[in-house]
Amino acid sequence: MDILFKNITVVTMDTKNPVIENADVGISGRKIIHISPTGAELTATRVINGIGKVLMPGLYNCHSHAAMTLFRGFANDRALEDWLFNYLIPAEAKLTPELVRTGTLLAMAEMLSSGTVAFTDMYYFMDTVAEAVHDVGMLANISNGVTKDGFDFYRDTFYRTTHALGDTHKDGRVKLNAHIHGCYTSPPSWWEQVAAFAQENHLQMHVHLSETKTEHENCVKIYGKTPAAMFAEHGVFNVPTTAAHGVWVTDEDIAILAEKNVTVAHNPISNLKLASGLAPVQKMKAAGVNVALGTDGVSSNNSHDLFEELKMASLLQKYATNDPTALPAFETLAMATLNGAKAQGRSHESGMIKVGYDADILLMDFDNPRQTVCYDPILNLAYSTSGRDVEMTICRGKVLYEKGEFTTIDIEKTLHDARKAREVFLKA
Amino acid sequence: MDILFKNITVVTMDTKNPVIENADVGISGRKIIHISPTGAELTATRVINGIGKVLMPGLYNCHSHAAMTLFRGFANDRALEDWLFNYLIPAEAKLTPELVRTGTLLAMAEMLSSGTVAFTDMYYFMDTVAEAVHDVGMLANISNGVTKDGFDFYRDTFYRTTHALGDTHKDGRVKLNAHIHGCYTSPPSWWEQVAAFAQENHLQMHVHLSETKTEHENCVKIYGKTPAAMFAEHGVFNVPTTAAHGVWVTDEDIAILAEKNVTVAHNPISNLKLASGLAPVQKMKAAGVNVALGTDGVSSNNSHDLFEELKMASLLQKYATNDPTALPAFETLAMATLNGAKAQGRSHESGMIKVGYDADILLMDFDNPRQTVCYDPILNLAYSTSGRDVEMTICRGKVLYEKGEFTTIDIEKTLHDARKAREVFLKA
Repeated sequence: MDILFKNITVVTMDTKNPVIENADVGISGRKIIHISPTGAELTATRVINGIGKVLMPGLYNCHSHAAMTLFRGFANDRALEDWLFNYLIPAEAKLTPELVRTGTLLAMAEMLSSGTVAFTDMYYFMDTVAEAVHDVGMLANISNGVTKDGFDFYRDTFYRTTHALGDTHKDGRVKLNAHIHGCYTSPPSWWEQVAAFAQENHLQMHVHLSETKTEHENCVKIYGKTPAAMFAEHGVFNVPTTAAHGVWVTDEDIAILAEKNVTVAHNPISNLKLASGLAPVQKMKAAGVNVALGTDGVSSNNSHDLFEELKMASLLQKYATNDPTALPAFETLAMATLNGAKAQGRSHESGMIKVGYDADILLMDFDNPRQTVCYDPILNLAYSTSGRDVEMTICRGKVLYEKGEFTTIDIEKTLHDARKAREVFLKA
Repeated sequence: MDILFKNITVVTMDTKNPVIENADVGISGRKIIHISPTGAELTATRVINGIGKVLMPGLYNCHSHAAMTLFRGFANDRALEDWLFNYLIPAEAKLTPELVRTGTLLAMAEMLSSGTVAFTDMYYFMDTVAEAVHDVGMLANISNGVTKDGFDFYRDTFYRTTHALGDTHKDGRVKLNAHIHGCYTSPPSWWEQVAAFAQENHLQMHVHLSETKTEHENCVKIYGKTPAAMFAEHGVFNVPTTAAHGVWVTDEDIAILAEKNVTVAHNPISNLKLASGLAPVQKMKAAGVNVALGTDGVSSNNSHDLFEELKMASLLQKYATNDPTALPAFETLAMATLNGAKAQGRSHESGMIKVGYDADILLMDFDNPRQTVCYDPILNLAYSTSGRDVEMTICRGKVLYEKGEFTTIDIEKTLHDARKAREVFLKA
């Protein structure tokens, strides 16, 4: 056994047995191999005293543009069009593979140090992003944000990246997804090409969907149908799809998303910050849609702390439905764990603490003022926790973060490079 | 000079000069005595290298029931009446001065470790709370939550506490406020008695105001007037008042609050969590009302992290007004600093970083992934910061918290006592 947590409280996120007190949990290689009441005679390379700690599954950030850490707080507090067209897009035109690598490493540092083990990414220089994730050891489903260079370029980048990833690609830690940026940035003919490519290659799909009212209404104006109806009609949802936002979806759209098993990645903080609106999460859940969580790019968040995001998601549904029992703690945590693993096609091996599952897990510190008093660890994790309480983040059995230190990221160099990148964009 | 911060970025919160880069800031005793460009020959007992750090005013939590840390997550995710009458009120009946002291110490530990220097409290056993704050060294305006024992008891408790506080009372660090719990828990005759007592003794006032729709509408049903109109009519607002919540105030109420210089303590997280609603903050600010921030009791929050609260406040106004420029970063930070100091009657000496002002200040760590990249420290403080980034909390020149350690709270004992308290309430 490589790591043994002794006498720990386990929030398994397994509905049959959500909390186990005073347990011993053992990890060997990539897997969770042992869970029992504490006290058995067990040995391990590393034994961790679990008193005052909680073990839980790692968090899934199902919609991000990781490298946008480089634009954290860049020209914020402006009207959407001013920000986008006068600042962000000109700045993004200056991106290089090196800058994207720096921004992605910075994002992973922030994510790991606040409990995220897996992210679904859409950005530029997909091969660079893939390599950075490969090096760091996180789980990720990534897709190329570029559409302007045509389908051949898209396909070639995809194959080149697959090749570069080698074994990591084979073991599924870093998955390449197909993507369609949104209904307003490419025509239906492109959607069909990408959908066919995804189906041929057994890929998942990542799209933006009905994020803003303008986007949603323009689609109806141009095509006579909503974005969800259009994507469904053109085969986009015929592969497992994560659709980001879904703020303006109609009841009919929700029925389509449920029928097609589309995951909606809910990004409440970004949606509020850009004044896009609030997605009808309770309605979607009632219809059977798998709802997961995302941070979106930190340029519109401005943080990668998914504990903050999940608390926000719960509070907003209570408010919007006028019901303090809406989106209770367990369901909220499920959005960030179980539902995220499902979205990424990993729920057979990740998202729960269970023997045989991958050790994609967090050691949480509960021996501090923020977590005292604790009547129910699930309630505290949903409403009293931030990334600050993450003591250790483990991906596939490997400790990637522990008490402020990173094992696979040169944090000093990453912070230094990111600060230098700032100078490039300030000149934009 | 006692403490000198060398070469630091200062977010002063002074509108005339909000950010000073590369400054030296000196503290002597209780006061900020020096601010200059870095490089002068200065000596101090303790010199702190400010590179990668930000200095800012400490945060004001203008509505709390601090000892309710003992009920963090207690029977949450229930309908309001079920939670209140079947769980919370029976549990509160078991409170003793010792338990309230433990809960208040725990709250102060959580507040100090997330950047709060001052809080406005309303709870039971006011003398116990006053003594605990006196011992720890924070700033607080506190008031007694009890009304049931009659006005003589109220007045006597007040005088006894004033006497017990001795010099601390004289130097204004711990202030005793008058209070009226709310329009639904006492009659107008009581309000008049308390208002007269407050006026005689030059006290500030702390009330709950229009938190829930039911409370607001019942008042109109019973008295034919809104809570704000009733309080104004009965002299409650004739002393400087902080009114918590204001979720359901009308336009006429807002005019009254502005005219009477009432501060509204906005508690967005609690208001959402209990599905009470969202206060019209933008409208109040436009009318000239001083709006500050509060966490409310952590039983309905469930955290004392005011950075989380201020970010939430800003996001919600952007959403509610459909305008991403609403409640921009500086105004949001002002709610937690300047406006809070004004609410507590301290704006002549606290809430800004300025020579001659009290050193009620925070040293923030910006050399970490969460704060990188930083284009504007004000934007990062509003949107990318949590209590995690607080490295040091100073009240009146005294370091009360630094890097996980408390100088005036025995944290091990406090956590231990709080866990023991849990057992008392579990039996309720």
